[in-house]
Amino acid sequence: MDLNFPPLKNDRILRAARGEETDKVPVWVMRQAGRYLPEFRATRVNHDFFSMCRTPEVACEITLQPIRRFPLDAAIIFSDILVVPQALGMEVLMKAGEGPVFTSPLVTPEDLNMLETPVNVDDKLGYVFKAINLTRHKLEGKVPLIGFAGAPWTLMSYMIEGGGSKTMSKSKAWLYRYPDESHKLLQILTDAIVDFLVGQVRAGAQMLQVFESHAEYLSPDLFTQFALPYIKQIQERVRTKVDVPMCIFPKGGHFSLEQLSSVGYDIIGLDWTIKPDEGRQKVGPNITVQGNMDPCALYGTKESIQVIAKNMVHRFGSQRYIANLGHGIYPDVDPEHLAAFIDGIHDA
Amino acid sequence: MDLNFPPLKNDRILRAARGEETDKVPVWVMRQAGRYLPEFRATRVNHDFFSMCRTPEVACEITLQPIRRFPLDAAIIFSDILVVPQALGMEVLMKAGEGPVFTSPLVTPEDLNMLETPVNVDDKLGYVFKAINLTRHKLEGKVPLIGFAGAPWTLMSYMIEGGGSKTMSKSKAWLYRYPDESHKLLQILTDAIVDFLVGQVRAGAQMLQVFESHAEYLSPDLFTQFALPYIKQIQERVRTKVDVPMCIFPKGGHFSLEQLSSVGYDIIGLDWTIKPDEGRQKVGPNITVQGNMDPCALYGTKESIQVIAKNMVHRFGSQRYIANLGHGIYPDVDPEHLAAFIDGIHDA
Repeated sequence: MDLNFPPLKNDRILRAARGEETDKVPVWVMRQAGRYLPEFRATRVNHDFFSMCRTPEVACEITLQPIRRFPLDAAIIFSDILVVPQALGMEVLMKAGEGPVFTSPLVTPEDLNMLETPVNVDDKLGYVFKAINLTRHKLEGKVPLIGFAGAPWTLMSYMIEGGGSKTMSKSKAWLYRYPDESHKLLQILTDAIVDFLVGQVRAGAQMLQVFESHAEYLSPDLFTQFALPYIKQIQERVRTKVDVPMCIFPKGGHFSLEQLSSVGYDIIGLDWTIKPDEGRQKVGPNITVQGNMDPCALYGTKESIQVIAKNMVHRFGSQRYIANLGHGIYPDVDPEHLAAFIDGIHDA
Repeated sequence: MDLNFPPLKNDRILRAARGEETDKVPVWVMRQAGRYLPEFRATRVNHDFFSMCRTPEVACEITLQPIRRFPLDAAIIFSDILVVPQALGMEVLMKAGEGPVFTSPLVTPEDLNMLETPVNVDDKLGYVFKAINLTRHKLEGKVPLIGFAGAPWTLMSYMIEGGGSKTMSKSKAWLYRYPDESHKLLQILTDAIVDFLVGQVRAGAQMLQVFESHAEYLSPDLFTQFALPYIKQIQERVRTKVDVPMCIFPKGGHFSLEQLSSVGYDIIGLDWTIKPDEGRQKVGPNITVQGNMDPCALYGTKESIQVIAKNMVHRFGSQRYIANLGHGIYPDVDPEHLAAFIDGIHDA
């Protein structure tokens, strides 16, 4: 891999992550490369979802699509959090209109024996590293490139539910019925995630985000027992090997913000249910906050979007802040409305 | 309707609601009559879901099923929050494994003209009043009977989404795109809900719960604009006509608790993501709190359930508190585990 990268021209997001002064609030959006873009849908027609993830040239192209259109302050590699369960030997299909489906989800603790551990991430996820390396070069230093992974509890819940769920009751049943085996699974995932994140940085990722997308299903007690320790471990172990800003995004985990502020991440992402002043206060002065406009605000008029975006910057403050939506952008959003959001942030 | 009811033998829940001293913590659970009970499933085999709601003798029998089995401190009438959209002329089917499906959901604001308003609740929902009256008699004063309704935003979101949704993006798009028409719909719903709740009390309901089950999809700003005013109006208007304790349950609305504490409800229900001490503090000293054990805790052992239940009472305190789950009981729970929960509360 060619590690001789072009110089970075826009370091706004890295400065915000480190608590340095920024001229404008940096902005990116979760699921930035995706179905709301016609050029993505055009690419998707010819490829299976996970084959797009596995083909570095395609993943690179999709990652660059929104960067060509919008004055974003970061790119995020096109991939999926479920590539880690795949690397552990589980088959995951992406079904149209339904989302991810595991052909053989974990049912009982004995099923842990079917997982192929330890994972050699270079073998199993080298395609992500190649996509990152290629994309970092193709970005030509325009903006930094973000790598990511799902957090252990979020991946565990997918592996047991086998797909979407309104309650995550099967995977939460594991936490209550099989606490030891749950910890075993969470540790297996943590080990893989650490190697995966380190590999992404070595390939060229300049910032990392850990998605605890299913924090919202946990009680504060379950979060403390089964999510927080692994989130902490990931930060600590990744830092011993590489040094880039790290963000943790606990979707729905309003109860977790104080705890998360003590486990070493540079940035904490807030979903749209968190009031900016309360989020800022819970996170404390030494951590950058990211978020948190309601993704559905993009259904309003361009004028209303800009008002909401500016108001958000006003409430969060312009420093130690990275603007984003409080969840991934939805597929039926007009790209022009995303442009209005980005402009609203940069003009605030 | 015969309003000469048998004397009440257990007023624990009403005392807790009024802030009076209780000998034990009262306990009931949401979806108390339901699929986790084999006798419910046996009844269900012979009836369509909504025909069970519409047949007073069947609704009464199902309401009494858990009361026969468990030392609960309240019964809640078997019905569904979607009977109000039905009363407004919308067709709702309950599909096995899928949940409710509207055959013609609201798509554009013009569709509001299809709603049959104002609703004569005696004509359209008299079957609920008959079921309540019959059940209150059949309860023979064993425990109080709770009536309920969905809150306006929750019903609005169902009427637009037409069923379940991971994001409520269609109904939230209305809030951003058509704020005036959204308010019009919310007011139509509020008017119907007020009459419906008043009618339930006049028929015999001794306590009321308003379910804002979809609070979790709203941002604090949207909640303030589109949910709170109608929740407030319902309490105020119902109180001018009848006087029973009223509970508001904002599922996922962690950000709403302070606001809700100022709109006159006797009880605020907390979901399982709220830490007991924080919930109590946000709700203030003059309101009873209800909740909030993780429904999935019932998948643990009976011993672990009792430990969690007792710990919950310890954290909430034994006064001005009604024990409950933080969401409805799930269908695959062992009824013996619910018994362990109830015992754990009463023994705490």
